Order: sequence, then structure tokens, then C-alpha cells
Amino acid sequence: MDVRFDRIARIQAAMREQGWIAIVVLNHDDYRYLFGTDRAQPRAIIPFQGPPELIAFTGEEPELRAALADGKVRVFGSVGGQIHDVVGRLHELAAAAPAEWAPNGRFKVGLQLWFATPAFLVDMFRQVNPTVDVVSSDAVMDPLRTIKEPAEVALLAEAQRIAGLGMDRVRELLRPGVTAHEIATEAIYTMMRAGAEATSTPIYVNFGIETCMLHGRLSPEPLKAGELAIVDLTPTVRGYCANLARTFVLGEPDSRQAELIATYRQIVAAARAKLRPGVTTAQLDAAAHEVCAAHGFGEYQVYGIGHGIGLRFEEPPASTIIPPHKNLPIEEGMTFTIGHTVLAIPGFGGVRFEDVYRVGSAGPEILADYPIEPVVPV
Amino acid sequence: MDVRFDRIARIQAAMREQGWIAIVVLNHDDYRYLFGTDRAQPRAIIPFQGPPELIAFTGEEPELRAALADGKVRVFGSVGGQIHDVVGRLHELAAAAPAEWAPNGRFKVGLQLWFATPAFLVDMFRQVNPTVDVVSSDAVMDPLRTIKEPAEVALLAEAQRIAGLGMDRVRELLRPGVTAHEIATEAIYTMMRAGAEATSTPIYVNFGIETCMLHGRLSPEPLKAGELAIVDLTPTVRGYCANLARTFVLGEPDSRQAELIATYRQIVAAARAKLRPGVTTAQLDAAAHEVCAAHGFGEYQVYGIGHGIGLRFEEPPASTIIPPHKNLPIEEGMTFTIGHTVLAIPGFGGVRFEDVYRVGSAGPEILADYPIEPVVPV
Repeated sequence: MDVRFDRIARIQAAMREQGWIAIVVLNHDDYRYLFGTDRAQPRAIIPFQGPPELIAFTGEEPELRAALADGKVRVFGSVGGQIHDVVGRLHELAAAAPAEWAPNGRFKVGLQLWFATPAFLVDMFRQVNPTVDVVSSDAVMDPLRTIKEPAEVALLAEAQRIAGLGMDRVRELLRPGVTAHEIATEAIYTMMRAGAEATSTPIYVNFGIETCMLHGRLSPEPLKAGELAIVDLTPTVRGYCANLARTFVLGEPDSRQAELIATYRQIVAAARAKLRPGVTTAQLDAAAHEVCAAHGFGEYQVYGIGHGIGLRFEEPPASTIIPPHKNLPIEEGMTFTIGHTVLAIPGFGGVRFEDVYRVGSAGPEILADYPIEPVVPV
Repeated sequence: MDVRFDRIARIQAAMREQGWIAIVVLNHDDYRYLFGTDRAQPRAIIPFQGPPELIAFTGEEPELRAALADGKVRVFGSVGGQIHDVVGRLHELAAAAPAEWAPNGRFKVGLQLWFATPAFLVDMFRQVNPTVDVVSSDAVMDPLRTIKEPAEVALLAEAQRIAGLGMDRVRELLRPGVTAHEIATEAIYTMMRAGAEATSTPIYVNFGIETCMLHGRLSPEPLKAGELAIVDLTPTVRGYCANLARTFVLGEPDSRQAELIATYRQIVAAARAKLRPGVTTAQLDAAAHEVCAAHGFGEYQVYGIGHGIGLRFEEPPASTIIPPHKNLPIEEGMTFTIGHTVLAIPGFGGVRFEDVYRVGSAGPEILADYPIEPVVPV
């Protein structure tokens, strides 16, 4: 267990600035970010001061205690009583905190409120902690987590490299009659054998008009000659998420397919050219819109050309999840995808090519560059 | 698209009894249950009367409309405006509903609030719909969904059969030096090739003292001779979830391992003997406790020996998620696991064997029986 006391100290400083008494960690990604490892049910409290605190379940306690024998981390043993431990501990922290942090008599506690946090858990938390206000932990966590350290970029690049191996295998399988399920099965196997733990999302494999879906799942009908196919691979390495999407045409593209493909390649080029510190997703979308409009596809554009990526498959800036993020300036050291949205003509089909970049001071640095070769001979 | 108007009609009748104006569907499992198919972003409204309503995204609309051309389902097209569609529609429904459904001036809307519903989505929903009260949809959905139709039982049995194929492969791989990652990789591949779409949870593969974890993930150290190994497989078939857990010992078990294994087999037998309509999880746990106590393991028992299973990996009764469920009477036609909790001696290791049963009028009917053969020769 490689506890990241440096990150915890920065979080505590940011919490004190916000006037929060604690962040309660309920998610794998935050847990991994702070404690350098994963657990089946990650549960921890980061108080505004003092050592971080782990909540252990029956059977886990000896192992956690052994890992933390130096006393720099507190461990609560819990036999079904973890909720009471948390309630009691938050009361203690409230008593120790400056009164001005609770102008209305209620102290603030940060929780991550993204996809991995189930609504019932937050409701349960509010019920047993009626004297605190739950706030999204984003204001404290995002400034740290969005700026990736070199070791994090290396893991993202490794995940992206493995996605490329999966895509190589996909390309081999593309032929008339192949099923989306067969492609997904072989892609996962290839990526796991190469070291991926899992995928962060279902594998998306869509054929024909189902390529219109922003993120369709597995098409039910086998691939036919002449059809478009979109495959989106999201393997993870030590929790870090890849995101590689490619569009293929089985056989020679017809003129509309060729036009969509050419347009999307220009969209990617235009967005890449603008991806540098200070730009917003809205500005990247505007650059994409110019290209779409020039090709007569303006009405079909879907906004949200890219998003942050890291220990979550979508991270801030994530304008398709949190609309105000479209105006969040992208910073140096963020990792960001371009190619998230499909350019689709309803009833016909769609196209997209997605890759991951580190935002460098001089522009984008692609992680594990993978070729765009959409035409698959039949 | 095989819309289940029969189920929708029963849900609408139950909603009117509860005095709710609508259920808003945000989850794959409810969507599949009601519309017989899946979508990347399942979104629908079941009003208290009238046709069900789908919310379509750009690109999906033509396909959904074509599938629903007979007018028995409404479709909202949405270009980024789905939230406004929902808000507007809920206002209309409130205006059409009996005033006594809103004694405090606020109408009730049901949402599923389980693992698959992210907290931020519910918070966003509450923000844009400040005049309605969000309630858990369980009171309406559970009475239908927990009682499985024969076709549902057949899919659960098929998923369980595929889990057995995965477990056969796992058993072949168990040898000194094998890694948990290798086992998970091969098990997923075997199960997907046999028709599983995915797994409903990560695959759990734990060795040595990590078998103490209730649901550990992948052990980092390779398996050693003499160690316990627990593998839990959860493939899905058309959304229906399997749950097959087995414990193995690499080589001849020592006396404590043998005692734990023998005890758990008696726990399973005792709980099976009691599993019939009217029993509660608390009563099954009490039966398990008698066995544990008789073997001197009483203090190590973890409560929650089983749980409902279906389109979610845990369904009501699910006492480890929702504690009051421990007193919910199990009914004929429910599908229920036995063997969910690990019997573990901290610092030593744990054991469990989990299978899925249909609750028949005369007792449990195991789905796809799989052998318990814990000793793996080295």
C-alpha cells in the first residue's frame, strides 16, 4: 500500500480553504489515487487535518493494520458498524473545526458524485448524517486529479497501447458475417492477455445504421459488406482508462461514407490544432463546427468533441456529463480525448476516430499513436 | 423491440395505488424489463396512464420511431433537450393527476435508486424538477420483478450454465504459480465464447489470506500450493445475471481448511433446507449460525447468506445492501442465491460456495447444478 501523503496533504489544504470538515471516499478511483491500491469496497475518511482514516470490514482489518503499522494512517475495524463509525467521526471533526465553517450550523462534507457513486448510498449517507451538508468533492479533487503526473501519463499511454493491440485484433476479424459479440470477445481477450485488468465501459461495436448511436452497445446483426463499423475500446491499466475508437468500412466506401470519413479526419485535425492550455471544449467544438458546416454536415454535429480521462473514463472537463464544463479552460498536464462524438446522418450511419492526448505547453502529445486506416478490403 | 405492455399495465395500476404520477426509467435493467431490449442510454417515462414514452437521442430517433410505428408508444426526439422534455411532461402529468396525490402540493415520481443510478443524475433530476418528490421505485417495481416468469428463469439458468463452463476452465488452470489475472482472463473468454455478454461484476479471484475478503478483486500474488482460492463468476445472458462461487484448495487441505469447507457445506445444506416461500433471510442466517456455532466459528459469521438475483446482480431481498430486507418474506417464483457471505478466519482464510435457486412451492430448485469439488491435486 503506497499511501500518497503528498496528495492527501494538498487535499487537506484545499479542504481547509473550502471550509469542509472531511471528504468521505466511497469510490475506487479516489481510493486508488490516495492510497495507491484498490479494495473491493473502498471506504476512507480524509479529515481536514491529521492522518487519513481507513474503514476496514471484517476480515480485512488485520491486513490493513499490518500495512499501516507505522501509525500514519488510522484504521477503524467495523463489524457491520461502519456507518456509525463515520457518523461518530464526523461529529468529532465538526467539534474540532472552526465554527465559521458552519454559518448555518451545518458543516460540509465532500463526496464524489459521479457515475460510480450510487444514489442510494448518498441518500443513506444523508439520512444517517442529518447535521452535515453533502457537497460534491470536485472543487477539491479536480484541480489535483486533472493534472497528471508523468507516472500517470505513462499508465494512460500503456492502456492506450493495449487498446491498439485490441484494435489490431478487431481489424483482423472484420469480414462479412462477423458478429459484434465475436469482436468484443476477442478484443477483450487480447487486451487482458496484454495486461489490461478490464474495460472501463462495455466494448462498443456497432454496424450499419447503428453507427449513428453515440455509444451503441453490441449490434445484434452480423456485419455486411459495404457497412460502416465503429469500435470503441476502453481497457484499463492499474485503473487508468484508455479510449480508442476507430471507424471501418467493409469494402470500398461509397461517396457519402467517404465524405463523412474525410470530414471527421478534418475535425480531428482542427481540434488537435487548437488543443493547448487555455482552450475550452466549447472552442474545440466551434472549430469542429466550422469543418462540419463546410461539408454541409453542420446540422448533424453533436457537441462534446472530447473529454478529460484518467482514473475515470470521463473526467473534467466533461461537457457531455456536466454542461458548464464546456467553458472550463484546459490546462497543461491534463489528459484529454478528441473524437468522442459521432458525426452521423440519421438513418445512414456515423463515423468517429478517438484518441487520447496529454496537453503540453506547445500543444497536444498523442499517447500511443494508432493509425487511422478505415478501409478494410473484402 | 418487444414492448411488454402487460408489465407496463401492471406497473401503472400499482403506481395509481401509490399515487405516483410517473416512473422515470434511467437504467438498463428496468428498460430491458419493460421494452425487451437494451440501449446505450436507456431513458423512458412510464406515466400513470396512457402509452409509455421513450426519450430518443439524436440519431436514435428514426430507429425507435420505426420500431414503434403503431403509436402504442410515444417517442420524444431530443437534441440535448431531453431534460426539458422530461420536466415538461411531468408538469402535464401533474396537471392530469388527482389532486389528493399531492397533499403537500408535491407529486411523487419513482426512480430506481440502486447501484446503477449515479448520485449526480438524481441530484440533477431533483434540481430541474423542484416541484416533485423523488421516491424509490422499489415499491412498484419489486413485486413484479422479483417473481420471475419461466422465460426469465430459463435465462438465469443459461447464465448459470455458462458460469459453470467458466468454472471448469478455472479448475484446469489452478496450479502453483498461476495468477488471478490469468484465471480471470481465461474465464471471461470461455464464458463470452459460450454466449455471455459480459460479467455483471468484476471477476473475483482470491488466494491465501485474501480469501478473507467478502468480495476481494484479483489477488496480486500468484497461487501457492496449500493455499485456498475463491473464484466468483457472474456472466450475464440478455441482462440476466449468474452467480457461481467456488472455493478450491491447491493440494490436500490442512485440518482447519477442511473444517471450514465442511462447515460451509453444512451451512449451504441448512439454508437450502429452509429455503421455501415465507422464510426470511434472517431465518436463513439463523440456520447458518447454528451450524457455525456448532463448529466453533460463530464469531466469524457474516450475515446475508443469500440475495435475490435477476436483471441486477443483487435484487430484493438484498439484506447486505438494504438491511430491512432481512425480514422480507421470500416468495414462490423468486430467484435467490445461497452462499453469498464468506466464512473466514481473519489472518487465515475463508470459504464459500454460492449457487442460484428458484424458490418453488416445495422448496429450492437449483439452476444448472454445478459440483462442489474443492480439492485440486497438485
